[in-house]
Amino acid sequence: MPNASAEAFAPATVANLGVGFDILGLALREPGDRVRVEHRDQPGAVITDIEGDGGKLPRDPEKNTACIAANSVLKTLGVSSGVAITLHKHLPLASGLGSSAASAVAAAVAVNALFGEPLTRPELLPACLDGEAAVSGYHADNVGPSLLGGITLITGTSSDQIHNLPVPEGVYLALVTPDVAVPTAEARAVLPKMVNLHDMVAQTGAVARLVDAIYRADVRGLATVMEQDCIIEPARAHLMPKLIEVREAAKRAGALGLVISGAGPTLCAVCDDEKVSELVAAAMKNVYDMVGVQSTARHTRIAVKGAQVLRVNDRESP
Amino acid sequence: MPNASAEAFAPATVANLGVGFDILGLALREPGDRVRVEHRDQPGAVITDIEGDGGKLPRDPEKNTACIAANSVLKTLGVSSGVAITLHKHLPLASGLGSSAASAVAAAVAVNALFGEPLTRPELLPACLDGEAAVSGYHADNVGPSLLGGITLITGTSSDQIHNLPVPEGVYLALVTPDVAVPTAEARAVLPKMVNLHDMVAQTGAVARLVDAIYRADVRGLATVMEQDCIIEPARAHLMPKLIEVREAAKRAGALGLVISGAGPTLCAVCDDEKVSELVAAAMKNVYDMVGVQSTARHTRIAVKGAQVLRVNDRESP
Repeated sequence: MPNASAEAFAPATVANLGVGFDILGLALREPGDRVRVEHRDQPGAVITDIEGDGGKLPRDPEKNTACIAANSVLKTLGVSSGVAITLHKHLPLASGLGSSAASAVAAAVAVNALFGEPLTRPELLPACLDGEAAVSGYHADNVGPSLLGGITLITGTSSDQIHNLPVPEGVYLALVTPDVAVPTAEARAVLPKMVNLHDMVAQTGAVARLVDAIYRADVRGLATVMEQDCIIEPARAHLMPKLIEVREAAKRAGALGLVISGAGPTLCAVCDDEKVSELVAAAMKNVYDMVGVQSTARHTRIAVKGAQVLRVNDRESP
Repeated sequence: MPNASAEAFAPATVANLGVGFDILGLALREPGDRVRVEHRDQPGAVITDIEGDGGKLPRDPEKNTACIAANSVLKTLGVSSGVAITLHKHLPLASGLGSSAASAVAAAVAVNALFGEPLTRPELLPACLDGEAAVSGYHADNVGPSLLGGITLITGTSSDQIHNLPVPEGVYLALVTPDVAVPTAEARAVLPKMVNLHDMVAQTGAVARLVDAIYRADVRGLATVMEQDCIIEPARAHLMPKLIEVREAAKRAGALGLVISGAGPTLCAVCDDEKVSELVAAAMKNVYDMVGVQSTARHTRIAVKGAQVLRVNDRESP
């Protein structure tokens, strides 16, 4: 007998971490999306309401990320009933913070909770990927950390290809999201098709150092090496307004390194102190303020836990 | 006042570790080169004798790797006297085991010991690189592990760009060196100049996994991921006789993975048991025996320590 309703939270994520293009990502403590699902007797998932998207997300169950993920879980569970979804969107669309992944993950975790959590988190991965695929393609660099938390190394789309790395103490993140559109498709299109071998060696060396620094909890080391991406950032930099100026301002305010979050335009600075991360966030926002670009600044930490069930109401609850 | 003579050992090394092309290497407990230096009043380094090279190595101080490294240390120390070198060559030339690096490192460490070890191991790196450069170019993927020991991550040629990774317990290596020439220059020439982005992502993912597995002491994981090199091995495979057959034979005998050591032709199999590594070495050699190719098989372990001073005789010793 399913519960009457369930609610889940899934965090925003920073994919790539500079040199870890398409293979590394981390979960943020905030922001994140919340999904509430109510059980209904009719099969399939439908949208009851979406808050916080400015009307931009599709309500069509076949196009909505959360609905697709929910339907995928329902199908895996083999149930004949369905769910009505309310999506509370707390993170900006197309911002490089894994918005579609967070919605898909929150929906999958909520539906699973509705039916008493028969599936483990890794078992929910395919459903989350189904939802993500509707928007961004079938890849796990946002879905992985949003579902599983921490810092994840992603070498494929099956759960045994997603590895949790340790989360170093003392990492504080400052993020700024300028109000400009950087569609993921465009950010992919500008990438080189081919890379010279020398650059590949430099990139593999930097990635190896990044994993090494993560294990050593060497915050300065990881922030420095994240930035040494000689392939992806140079190709995308022109899509990120004021990247150079924001990086300079962040470092003047005490940041140890700065990378593009996912495909951008959010920029993510790494700090080793909470107060500094607050100052860095303000300094980054100030760069956009000076040129009249609206932006949102945040400071937060790495979320060790990924998506979480917030509330389950059984049939007897009011 | 310098000592009368000193002797040092430097280990053979396995560079690349498959997916870690040009950035990873490890030191072997054996074989290794031994260098004995005797103090002389005349400036500079000269060769007294070389044993075990079949007469193939140059005796000219300007071309001999050990002499060049020795001279570089003498210059760094600012001494006006010199050394006479006896090189005991215990590892095969042009075999992919870092032969020139071992000679350079043993010479540098011996000269440093002759003068009372004024320089630290990392401070000897430039001299070792000078010696290596005469044969293989100015890179540290063999010199680094031979000098410093263990598993090293090499992102450049200065000592702060060489990082010791942890050495997992339980790694046993089986090596086979067929008696065929694979000049490093030819092994470099066959490499692609450009790599497609998709392959680069796969390679960075595999390298990240390898470092992760090293930290986790996951021997099976590291052996599996080492092999997932989609760029270097495919380009070089045709230079390694019977690569496919040796890998198959190694795995049938219990090996967990096999990679080309450096630029080859030595092949290095990873095992998680000493007895198995002995059987694997024999099975690999048997493949060459069957086709009439002479080969040398070895089984050994990762050397946690790098080059070592074996003996120092002061002026009063007999």
